[in-house]
Amino acid sequence: MENIGKESLEWHYKMKGKISVEARCTVKNRRELSIAYTPGVAEPCLEIQRHPERSFELTRRWNSVAVITDGTAVLGLGDIGPEAGMPVMEGKCVLFREFAGIDAYPLCIRSKDVDEIVRTIYLISGSFGGINLEDIAAPRCFEIEDRLKEICDIPIFHDDQHGTAVVVGAALLNALKIVGKDISSIRIVISGAGAAGISICRLLMRLGAKDITLVGRKGIIVPDLEGITEPQREMAKITNPDRRRGGLADAVSGADVFIGVSAPGILKPESIKTMNPDPIVFPMANPVPEIMPDLALEAGARIVGTGRSDFPNQINNVLAFPGIFRGALDCRASAINEEMKIAAARALAAAVSEDKLCGTNILPAPFEEGIADKVAAAVTEAARASGVARV
Amino acid sequence: MENIGKESLEWHYKMKGKISVEARCTVKNRRELSIAYTPGVAEPCLEIQRHPERSFELTRRWNSVAVITDGTAVLGLGDIGPEAGMPVMEGKCVLFREFAGIDAYPLCIRSKDVDEIVRTIYLISGSFGGINLEDIAAPRCFEIEDRLKEICDIPIFHDDQHGTAVVVGAALLNALKIVGKDISSIRIVISGAGAAGISICRLLMRLGAKDITLVGRKGIIVPDLEGITEPQREMAKITNPDRRRGGLADAVSGADVFIGVSAPGILKPESIKTMNPDPIVFPMANPVPEIMPDLALEAGARIVGTGRSDFPNQINNVLAFPGIFRGALDCRASAINEEMKIAAARALAAAVSEDKLCGTNILPAPFEEGIADKVAAAVTEAARASGVARV
Repeated sequence: MENIGKESLEWHYKMKGKISVEARCTVKNRRELSIAYTPGVAEPCLEIQRHPERSFELTRRWNSVAVITDGTAVLGLGDIGPEAGMPVMEGKCVLFREFAGIDAYPLCIRSKDVDEIVRTIYLISGSFGGINLEDIAAPRCFEIEDRLKEICDIPIFHDDQHGTAVVVGAALLNALKIVGKDISSIRIVISGAGAAGISICRLLMRLGAKDITLVGRKGIIVPDLEGITEPQREMAKITNPDRRRGGLADAVSGADVFIGVSAPGILKPESIKTMNPDPIVFPMANPVPEIMPDLALEAGARIVGTGRSDFPNQINNVLAFPGIFRGALDCRASAINEEMKIAAARALAAAVSEDKLCGTNILPAPFEEGIADKVAAAVTEAARASGVARV
Repeated sequence: MENIGKESLEWHYKMKGKISVEARCTVKNRRELSIAYTPGVAEPCLEIQRHPERSFELTRRWNSVAVITDGTAVLGLGDIGPEAGMPVMEGKCVLFREFAGIDAYPLCIRSKDVDEIVRTIYLISGSFGGINLEDIAAPRCFEIEDRLKEICDIPIFHDDQHGTAVVVGAALLNALKIVGKDISSIRIVISGAGAAGISICRLLMRLGAKDITLVGRKGIIVPDLEGITEPQREMAKITNPDRRRGGLADAVSGADVFIGVSAPGILKPESIKTMNPDPIVFPMANPVPEIMPDLALEAGARIVGTGRSDFPNQINNVLAFPGIFRGALDCRASAINEEMKIAAARALAAAVSEDKLCGTNILPAPFEEGIADKVAAAVTEAARASGVARV
């Protein structure tokens, strides 16, 4: 890891930026200038004034996504500031382009104030076909996303929440096929009650899960837990049906699935031994997981997935967000709703053919061809079926 | 014109956007992904956290400009709305790329409120190396630019004001060489007291002009004129030294230079006949000038320049803004100040060699090679000399 960091830093100094803005036409003579710019350009302007929705046809809006952060929860680094988050945002834009052919542009906002962030994004939203929120700290990220969804007519998608949830959902669907369990009758423990944990919890419920326990830093999320946030309080009402109290070990005992989006090394081998037969363990803390895969397997885990590329079953957002936005842009969706996320999770799960599905291959590899297309097709279909598609 | 508009509209429908965001690196395998994105990217992020100014080295910021409008003064079309202004903004981004190799991205803001526009642009300014304000109505544009200059540490440049002023300045310098007059001893009339007119007036004063009369819709700008804006009142104090009153004809009588950024057909041939010998006439209203060039020449104008590409001496912003921003970005200037604008005007004038300088060739052609480079070099030098360069 140390070496990768050093190498990446040197490479970034050499690259001087990972994206560029290019012209799709030339302006080499008066004729070309008068068509692409003045005086000809007045006519497409007037056309959009008459029919505002044609900004999706006459400009690049139809294919463009803003990747926006406030720099408060960048990778595992925490609040490092807006400008310091930009190498990640640029990287994300590269992934949008390379995996889904999307024109993504990185923006950082110099504010931690919810009202200001919401207003700023709303005011520039007419420039884009979609907004990808990135690396914004919880619980602020929930309110920012919820409020933007109310006032914007383009998709608003906080990838750290929903992208992660979609890929975990897909991984779990396939893992359950292997162990022969039904999602509606298993116990799931999610370690980490921040943005990702809560979003995973919600998506798994939509996928049919009925018994999920959320565990935060202060233990199992229960309604009277001291210092819990409003979103956690909401979750406390609909999770932990047998009203357990205590820490992670108390939650994990008798569970079928462990999902970690929390902190390095906090899942002990002994805890895995208390889980139900064929435990599914997804310790996804990055770069050091809640338990290292070899230890988890040794302790009896049947299927293990992490966020890391150097172990099998990498649960990587890049499997989801490019296809999700591609699908949303393709039908000019006004939102990315629950139906579209579920369709994405199912399509991603289905992208692993049955003959290849096994304990060490529950997800497509990030670089497998055609994954984004499959996800996009399912997302577009779900958008149409749920009434948010506009073309 | 009619046909160009129709053709441009069809072409825009076919193009579906004039710019794209491209990746400058590939992410075709785990190795590349771990350098350009996680986990390696954490290191450049931390480097920027430690040294915020390195965002200019580790991301594309060093070469990037936002082209921002509120859609209130788009071309000659007026307040057509933010989204409707985007075909112009995209076109401008194409020019930035094609003439100066700059990564420019178009943004529109859904607000007409000065406070909101200023705050929005400030909050996203950490994402860019410069801000090009575009097609924002006067007098709002003055306050927006002034306030942004105070709070931002990157160049803020309202091209409709300063780009136009720089090109007019260059054109006038060369025209005066031909007629053998000195800028400090001539009378200049500017028709149009909006953003462009006032900025031209200021720049010409910096170039040495001592006797300028501004004429707005209600006549010559004098301190007690009814309904004048605050910026116009400021100008009234330092213009019109012989305290003329009245309309455009009153102002033009005995003048050496007419500069029009106002309305079609308002300069009459008879008025040109009242001007001093060898009158210089720049009727730049677009697409129909204050007087058509042939009429102006017939009436005795010695040198005529317009905004149009179908007559000699096209006074076109594209001669200035690409090189000005190139020069500012190259030295990481914190601002584009008066010294830099004057340097740009002088460099642009000097780009016409003496053997080619004549009444029908006072400016380089927009497509002449190397113009932006010449302007950029002069701008960088002026930035260094005036203390705003940072590298």
